[in-house]
Amino acid sequence: MSEQIMQRTSFKESRCPIARSLERVGEWWSILILREALLGSTRFDEFHKSLQIAPNILTRRLTALVEAGLLERRLYQEHPPRHAYVLTQAGRDFQPVLVALMTWGNRYFAPEGPSVVLADAATGRRAEPVLVDRRSGRPITARAFALAPGPAADRRLRARLARRGTPPSTRRGSHG
Amino acid sequence: MSEQIMQRTSFKESRCPIARSLERVGEWWSILILREALLGSTRFDEFHKSLQIAPNILTRRLTALVEAGLLERRLYQEHPPRHAYVLTQAGRDFQPVLVALMTWGNRYFAPEGPSVVLADAATGRRAEPVLVDRRSGRPITARAFALAPGPAADRRLRARLARRGTPPSTRRGSHG
Repeated sequence: MSEQIMQRTSFKESRCPIARSLERVGEWWSILILREALLGSTRFDEFHKSLQIAPNILTRRLTALVEAGLLERRLYQEHPPRHAYVLTQAGRDFQPVLVALMTWGNRYFAPEGPSVVLADAATGRRAEPVLVDRRSGRPITARAFALAPGPAADRRLRARLARRGTPPSTRRGSHG
Repeated sequence: MSEQIMQRTSFKESRCPIARSLERVGEWWSILILREALLGSTRFDEFHKSLQIAPNILTRRLTALVEAGLLERRLYQEHPPRHAYVLTQAGRDFQPVLVALMTWGNRYFAPEGPSVVLADAATGRRAEPVLVDRRSGRPITARAFALAPGPAADRRLRARLARRGTPPSTRRGSHG
């Protein structure tokens, strides 16, 4: 329980865009629900069937994703009332995260070969997703690109990012 | 508790590379630890200080990341014994996932403006990370690229991916 609380506290206070993103997607189920939604699922039964998730957990996760602004609840039938869960723009834009996770998983955790890949819809050729800078087209590597403070960076973060060039051996550290 | 068990069960059985990836990174703390490692942290105290995470949780997460093959434990001092946690190749290759999360978080969850951005190390210009296909250079969009079965896809997955072209209105679904 303390883990849960610490996690929450830490995330709420964080200005880190990664921590904020993680707060929105909540937990693994949420990521897999977004995966299903990007695959075309919109209805409770569809999510339920493909994820084999308990209905009460699914309800909770769908509600959280609606509250986070990633899914929109839409009435598609009046008698009896039935709702569809449709991705918002923010939800659709989660796709690169899933593609990056898929690429990484296929590279390292599919010893029998990948079971699902991304293919060019026109040619059918398997894609190799890489991150590049939209403007320069240069691949995003740790060497060519560095983290820098944005307009909302506070003093502590600026100091931290400035220290980054320091080699580990000159930094303090004892435990471990 | 049942949530935890279901999650585990479902993930272990899954051939989905996203689910497998999520199994490896375990939970949010693990992702933030990888973030710190990619920022240059290697020592217990460094992780502890920047994440403000309870020592027992940090120990558990570091061990899990070592077991998952994402961090390597190295002795850097003999008396008293001190270990550093160094990224493996698989751990370093998690970077695109973090960049994708950062980009998404900056776009949607930084109303006051981003606090941290990615900048070209040579020019200092802010980067706009996008996923493209390495070979063709085409941006990875839901329209231009589709999921396809890989060599290890089973019959059920093949059927599922084949059904994807079907518009939602022709599919069954009731609950919701």
